[in-house]
Amino acid sequence: DGEVEKPFTLTLDELKKLPKATVTVTLECAGNGRSFYEPSVPGIQWERGAVGTARFTGARLADVLKKAGVKATGKYVLLDGADKAVGKQPEFQRNVPLAKALHVDTVLAYEMNGEPLPALHGFPLRAVIPGWEGAYAVKWLNHVSVIAQEHDGFFVKTAYRYPNRRVAPGEAVAPADMEPVKGLVVKSLIHTPLEGAKFKPGVVKMGGFAWAGESFITKVEVSMDNGASWKLAKLGKEKERYAWQAFEAEFNIAAAGSYLLMARATDDKGNVQPVAPQWNPSGYLWNVIEKVRIDVKA
Amino acid sequence: DGEVEKPFTLTLDELKKLPKATVTVTLECAGNGRSFYEPSVPGIQWERGAVGTARFTGARLADVLKKAGVKATGKYVLLDGADKAVGKQPEFQRNVPLAKALHVDTVLAYEMNGEPLPALHGFPLRAVIPGWEGAYAVKWLNHVSVIAQEHDGFFVKTAYRYPNRRVAPGEAVAPADMEPVKGLVVKSLIHTPLEGAKFKPGVVKMGGFAWAGESFITKVEVSMDNGASWKLAKLGKEKERYAWQAFEAEFNIAAAGSYLLMARATDDKGNVQPVAPQWNPSGYLWNVIEKVRIDVKA
Repeated sequence: DGEVEKPFTLTLDELKKLPKATVTVTLECAGNGRSFYEPSVPGIQWERGAVGTARFTGARLADVLKKAGVKATGKYVLLDGADKAVGKQPEFQRNVPLAKALHVDTVLAYEMNGEPLPALHGFPLRAVIPGWEGAYAVKWLNHVSVIAQEHDGFFVKTAYRYPNRRVAPGEAVAPADMEPVKGLVVKSLIHTPLEGAKFKPGVVKMGGFAWAGESFITKVEVSMDNGASWKLAKLGKEKERYAWQAFEAEFNIAAAGSYLLMARATDDKGNVQPVAPQWNPSGYLWNVIEKVRIDVKA
Repeated sequence: DGEVEKPFTLTLDELKKLPKATVTVTLECAGNGRSFYEPSVPGIQWERGAVGTARFTGARLADVLKKAGVKATGKYVLLDGADKAVGKQPEFQRNVPLAKALHVDTVLAYEMNGEPLPALHGFPLRAVIPGWEGAYAVKWLNHVSVIAQEHDGFFVKTAYRYPNRRVAPGEAVAPADMEPVKGLVVKSLIHTPLEGAKFKPGVVKMGGFAWAGESFITKVEVSMDNGASWKLAKLGKEKERYAWQAFEAEFNIAAAGSYLLMARATDDKGNVQPVAPQWNPSGYLWNVIEKVRIDVKA
């Protein structure tokens, strides 16, 4: 409903009759890595776990909006789920600018990895806004409205916002200087080895994933000397636009000691993971060069 | 005296009759930057100040040793100053391997910047061991011995030592795994702007120095985007082997905000300042990419 010619209701079965689209998407919470910020910021103290990748199948949001007929006054699409707010928490509602909502890869998904969407992942329906931070992927979706201006609910006007200028660590930022977080930034994750892993001198294999929201990863570089020198990691063959890409590398470590292994990804827009974080009051979009410390003992 | 054919005593006037040599040298305390280590380490909590550059003139240590005739058993040269230890502190004595002691650039200096050596800088005589950490530059020098093995005094056997392997932050390191700190490592210092400096949007000028012990600086790169992208700084014309080299750069900063300016030096052996520090129990040789935070306000 909202700024449309013909508001309507669709059953899940009716939705499934619309053309099917499948997208493989890395979903990451904007707050992933929040715990690494100094000074620290409030919120769930995520380290590396708030990210995952899945294949979603559903109807295109564009096809649903076409049936309704968006008026010239429609600027945003409001996504609302069936989840009820706990206690005094505001309702979880998010909005997407019309251009992104109409994108061919924006899907209302009823399948995940070829199976019906699990309850935890939003059964019966979940919005999938590829390349954008995970909070756009509204679960248990049951209501889509076209609206004329940015929604004024808590989860649009207050949460998931990032300063529109570089702020000093610890600085308070006026609401007028905050913008919605949209696309994910270039980032990598080392899954092998894990922090504190022990090795004998010899070859140490590294494995990980890199992603950059709507962009492609063009290279991942790795280091074993505290980031003084770097070499290219080998990228995996699978390259989906919105999905993380595997990388692997080997280090021949002859001498015993404590080593910091690092990974640094670059995307096709030339963005590269930075040396130092850009502090922000909600601890969003942490993407500093990835580091894992290992122990080599004879 | 020591492992020499002809021990002798020289007056300052006699020393001045030996051929003169002048070296321009950056002297840096091995502990400069110690305060930046985490976990923190004991010792004077130096930030950036424990470094300076001067022109020293004196006699070559090699000429003095030649007069004495070093025996085949002589492996180190022990340098001892006239300073008396305070309380129970051990006497300050340092030793230099024979090859470095005999190097043409190693001098016993009686002038600094064209003037007699000031008392604070070691009048009448100071050892200058170019490119090596500052503690080799023994002040108030009045006794030189050639010795057959590494000296066992506190300031050789215990202090100014660095692990011979990469150790984990906070780890205790056995004395057998420690080696003397010798050459200074590649490093840079931003003197302009200073931390917390305020600017209006527009051009911000950066100035600094870079040094690398016995090596030459080949480039300095600078960044204003948290170390995501880098550009070359302009190097000054003066290039002395052991002296720091000036660099300068400009940033055009249009938007208000808090910016982290960085500098990263590379030397002619391909060494580059690292992203992360190599922790060690005495906090020596800090040379992580240099960072200064500034504030741009309209």
